Amino acid sequence: MTRDVKFREEAAALGYSFDGEIKIGGNYAPLVRDGNHVYVSGQIPRVEDSVVVTGRAGAETTLSEARLGAKICAMRALALLQRSLGTLDRVTAILRLTVYVQSTQTFTQQSEVADSASEVFANVLGSAGVHSRTSVGVLQLPKNATVEVDLIATVD
Amino acid sequence: MTRDVKFREEAAALGYSFDGEIKIGGNYAPLVRDGNHVYVSGQIPRVEDSVVVTGRAGAETTLSEARLGAKICAMRALALLQRSLGTLDRVTAILRLTVYVQSTQTFTQQSEVADSASEVFANVLGSAGVHSRTSVGVLQLPKNATVEVDLIATVD
Amino acid sequence: MTRDVKFREEAAALGYSFDGEIKIGGNYAPLVRDGNHVYVSGQIPRVEDSVVVTGRAGAETTLSEARLGAKICAMRALALLQRSLGTLDRVTAILRLTVYVQSTQTFTQQSEVADSASEVFANVLGSAGVHSRTSVGVLQLPKNATVEVDLIATVD
Repeated sequence: MTRDVKFREEAAALGYSFDGEIKIGGNYAPLVRDGNHVYVSGQIPRVEDSVVVTGRAGAETTLSEARLGAKICAMRALALLQRSLGTLDRVTAILRLTVYVQSTQTFTQQSEVADSASEVFANVLGSAGVHSRTSVGVLQLPKNATVEVDLIATVD
Repeated sequence: MTRDVKFREEAAALGYSFDGEIKIGGNYAPLVRDGNHVYVSGQIPRVEDSVVVTGRAGAETTLSEARLGAKICAMRALALLQRSLGTLDRVTAILRLTVYVQSTQTFTQQSEVADSASEVFANVLGSAGVHSRTSVGVLQLPKNATVEVDLIATVD
Repeated sequence: MTRDVKFREEAAALGYSFDGEIKIGGNYAPLVRDGNHVYVSGQIPRVEDSVVVTGRAGAETTLSEARLGAKICAMRALALLQRSLGTLDRVTAILRLTVYVQSTQTFTQQSEVADSASEVFANVLGSAGVHSRTSVGVLQLPKNATVEVDLIATVD
């Protein structure tokens, strides 16, 4: 099964489509290519026109909802790579994943939130999805998003 | 018009000079070169000896002030590149811009703050200023700065 | 004196051993190699099974304790590089260090915390330890850690 098929299956399992425009919220590029490296901009859990997971993890937003948000961010990053490259089969590695979680003062499960994004990369990319990672808890994110994910990938 | 002239015009429009020493606040290098890549350290809106935009966006600091702070951070980063390279004409791309905004719990316009930094790179570098970007809202920044910006550039 | 000896001396001075397993807290790799670049995942001040510096800098955790935490994060990153490369003598540069400090609303000494991590790299790696750096104050970190450090290194 190709990674593009796995990507569609992951999207179906999440119940969201990533076929529409991948909108970004400002004056920058969704990704920048540098030789065989691609820098993907910070993704929030936006599907079409709405940010579907908002609020503060540990308060109005549960761990489970935050984990869903992180998966959507990861899927958006993959959707951007797929459109830019034609196919996810051209991704050779994810060098760095950074996961920012809008947290309460006492919410310390940022790694557990980030794990769900990591699982998406493992499910879709297999061994090419192995990555280094940093997870932090921040005070706010654009548009009150619960989570934001950026990454650096290598491609052939 | 060369980029170095555009840089001077941008500085004049902001009303700040970046001709003095670009001070940094700790035990590290303002930038590190790796082949044709340059990593620029996190810049706060310091001009000579003072941090000119401080405080929390959404509370004592307005969106407009935070946007000014982001522009000054961007200009400092460009000033460092210019000094290191001799001229900004040698910058070939900005791969990643990360913008940290000292925010209140309810301030969600981090992208709007970051846009003003992005505009500086577009104004001065033209198409070489296109970049990927991540914007987050953090609890505090060194010296109570309202905003901090770091970047990775490519140069020839 | 080789860097590996300096590393052992630094560990002895800190009073912690980094000879045990370097545990990580999630579904990702402690480091990823890309040609002569190595991306080291975000390190918290964990020694064996415990996170030894926790809490909020400026509140229950002092600047001095936060600085100790940053040193332990830096030592963990070096321990990971040493195990992966066989010896720290193969590290040629630290391109980027990012230091996240769990802070109060009024704690603005993130650079002073980060300086202690920077000192570890200078002590152990000498001129190869010079780096660009970004320090920010965040609301929370995984497992209530006071500080988290990630880096990108070059190796031969």
